[in-house]
Amino acid sequence: MHYFKLKGKYLYCEDVQVEDLAKRFGTPLYVYSQRTLREHFDKIKKAFKAVSPLICYSVKANSNISILKSLVSRGAGLDIVSAGELYRAMRAGCSPKKIVYASVGKTAEEIKQAIKLGILMFNVESLSELAQINAIAGNLGKKVDVALRINPDINPKTHKYITTGRKETKFGIEIGSARKVFLKRDNYPNLNIVGVHIHIGSQIIQVGPFIKAIKKILKLFKELNKKNIKITYFNIGGGLGIIYDREKPQTAQEFSGKALPFLKEKGLKIILEPGRFIVGNAGILVTKVLYIKENPSKRFIVVDAAMNDLIRPALYGAYHKIVPAKKVTRSQGYKVTRKADVVGPVCESGDFLGKDRKLDVAEGDFLAVMGAGAYSFSMSSNYNSRPKAAEVLVKKNRAYLIRKREDCRDLVGKEILL
Amino acid sequence: MHYFKLKGKYLYCEDVQVEDLAKRFGTPLYVYSQRTLREHFDKIKKAFKAVSPLICYSVKANSNISILKSLVSRGAGLDIVSAGELYRAMRAGCSPKKIVYASVGKTAEEIKQAIKLGILMFNVESLSELAQINAIAGNLGKKVDVALRINPDINPKTHKYITTGRKETKFGIEIGSARKVFLKRDNYPNLNIVGVHIHIGSQIIQVGPFIKAIKKILKLFKELNKKNIKITYFNIGGGLGIIYDREKPQTAQEFSGKALPFLKEKGLKIILEPGRFIVGNAGILVTKVLYIKENPSKRFIVVDAAMNDLIRPALYGAYHKIVPAKKVTRSQGYKVTRKADVVGPVCESGDFLGKDRKLDVAEGDFLAVMGAGAYSFSMSSNYNSRPKAAEVLVKKNRAYLIRKREDCRDLVGKEILL
Repeated sequence: MHYFKLKGKYLYCEDVQVEDLAKRFGTPLYVYSQRTLREHFDKIKKAFKAVSPLICYSVKANSNISILKSLVSRGAGLDIVSAGELYRAMRAGCSPKKIVYASVGKTAEEIKQAIKLGILMFNVESLSELAQINAIAGNLGKKVDVALRINPDINPKTHKYITTGRKETKFGIEIGSARKVFLKRDNYPNLNIVGVHIHIGSQIIQVGPFIKAIKKILKLFKELNKKNIKITYFNIGGGLGIIYDREKPQTAQEFSGKALPFLKEKGLKIILEPGRFIVGNAGILVTKVLYIKENPSKRFIVVDAAMNDLIRPALYGAYHKIVPAKKVTRSQGYKVTRKADVVGPVCESGDFLGKDRKLDVAEGDFLAVMGAGAYSFSMSSNYNSRPKAAEVLVKKNRAYLIRKREDCRDLVGKEILL
Repeated sequence: MHYFKLKGKYLYCEDVQVEDLAKRFGTPLYVYSQRTLREHFDKIKKAFKAVSPLICYSVKANSNISILKSLVSRGAGLDIVSAGELYRAMRAGCSPKKIVYASVGKTAEEIKQAIKLGILMFNVESLSELAQINAIAGNLGKKVDVALRINPDINPKTHKYITTGRKETKFGIEIGSARKVFLKRDNYPNLNIVGVHIHIGSQIIQVGPFIKAIKKILKLFKELNKKNIKITYFNIGGGLGIIYDREKPQTAQEFSGKALPFLKEKGLKIILEPGRFIVGNAGILVTKVLYIKENPSKRFIVVDAAMNDLIRPALYGAYHKIVPAKKVTRSQGYKVTRKADVVGPVCESGDFLGKDRKLDVAEGDFLAVMGAGAYSFSMSSNYNSRPKAAEVLVKKNRAYLIRKREDCRDLVGKEILL
């Protein structure tokens, strides 16, 4: 579901023509639809209404402060993983009491800062970290709420790089160790171990692995309950898949339909951490066709966006639909029967946005790389000394610049010439 | 060859202790040895002395302006691929007459700017680009020197992402088309087509593919000569492999030994474009151990550097040696028999620096990721809202900050809160 639609021969973001945006703001350009991301947020909220969850949007998916504000002002909390994300959360006006903090590598400085700000809780990923937070809390004279991130050892059937709930991954605490922590919670006098967090991966299509993981944890809660240990929060993480190509992911409603029977009436406060589900299809990357290269052995469409702008195809072998911002009718021009690779200017073969696409485009035309709302700008780099793209947020018939395009001076702004 | 050596129990960069640098500048930290990169430059220069080549360092490998200046002041020219790199080249004080400009996606604006600055030549990658440069040169009333980048269709036997000289890659012009361009060079009245450029890939271990490609081009030159078309420049590109693990790459001397017999006495001006060869082993990434995570099923060393700092392991499956900045003797502590994955704080399983390493380290220790001079900082991103690392250049017994560490404010500096 999204609000990037063809009207006549032009692609629109809500009520704004994408080609107009490309001309006005230049390319490569990220364009987001506020309505799309907000409706996705509303969908999850509605689906899980029966348990009134705290929905903490996963900042790493797309961390632009105006995107965060669009969600925070709608009631979202935030799921963060670094001091940088905490800073962004504050800038976007998020209440610390709606912030949960994961990451296997929180530094002492980061922990201190988050305690001082009074975030809702840490999702703790190792016994060393637990000891560290306990010590820092002690030094600060505070008692700090934490959840244990448990690694449930479940295969979510997604790309290996975004599989995070199998025991051979670095994430979370194995269930046996977590059990011991709960039983010996007096070892951590400065912590309230109030919850459990799971997050088994990202872009998960099937509901089965989620339910398996939830059941595993609920079994632990039952055991602990018998020993009079009560858990308040159950953070079931994120990871709901979206449609990039022909995937048929579970809807929020289907997910909640399967999950709620297990979660309702347990007296648990539920936390959800959707990222890609909210913002994935709410953004596109707009790019200009620089050259059409008709080699005897292959056709290439060379565009001005590259792997530094969008690394998902190279890094995960990810598929992104690519469509023209303006549909050309056959009578106007050429007929394209030859498939082409859509590639950027970066000097390596890993720099491609799509392979073997049939596209009716000419030099100077604009293309939209769909599904580029999540893990797209947030992973962008300056490789090949390419300034980062600009970002625009569309609200109905108006477009707002939410990140200025970098320029050459920005590239060297931190450098010192000896 | 490099100047990162263990002296006693401490790792040194030239005459400076790496651990001291980590404490002084913080981590993650890139540390470069000027002597290493300059000696690599000298090696290539010496190996090809017989043809007095112009050695254009490949800026994309490591584009810090102080690194560029270290080489430019030694006589190097620069191989660039974008307006950003051209800007850097100027900042580093490089003469435009020593700059060659490749890239499959040069924009009109970039071409115009480079012509105005008077660079040595463009390496042209397609017929469309050739027409475009010709048109822009005409508008500017200039005659512009170009080389045709020919795709020789040679397998360099390296990672597919850095293979750039096979016909199914986006790079260069197929040899048949290039021949036609030379024969019909009058079609481009504003261009002097003075040279041929080849670049078959990166991290190439064997000399064979280079020689094959060179011979293919020399055959073309012979044909053209018969038709009275004289080529002035032969740019044989870069791509010389280095030692990351147990590779046994050809030395510069071995390469020149095989190549020079073909290049000498042809009256050709030779250009070389080494990048990784010069800087690859001249840099390390220093990182602090945050947590040791002893799971029943696996051991993890969680450090404060991550895939945003160094994406080569995730993107190319690249191997980097990892060594402690200070060697711990057995008697001082623990004995490590268990292999560990060295991972960063970023929230995905693709975030690792090394797998299954035996390392004697404790929390708080510093590690050096070796061979992190090329395609390391230059590919870094702000993923997970992590500020980019600082960079330090060591000259003998002194260390100079050449890039300040980013902070949280830098992350959002270009963003606009609606």
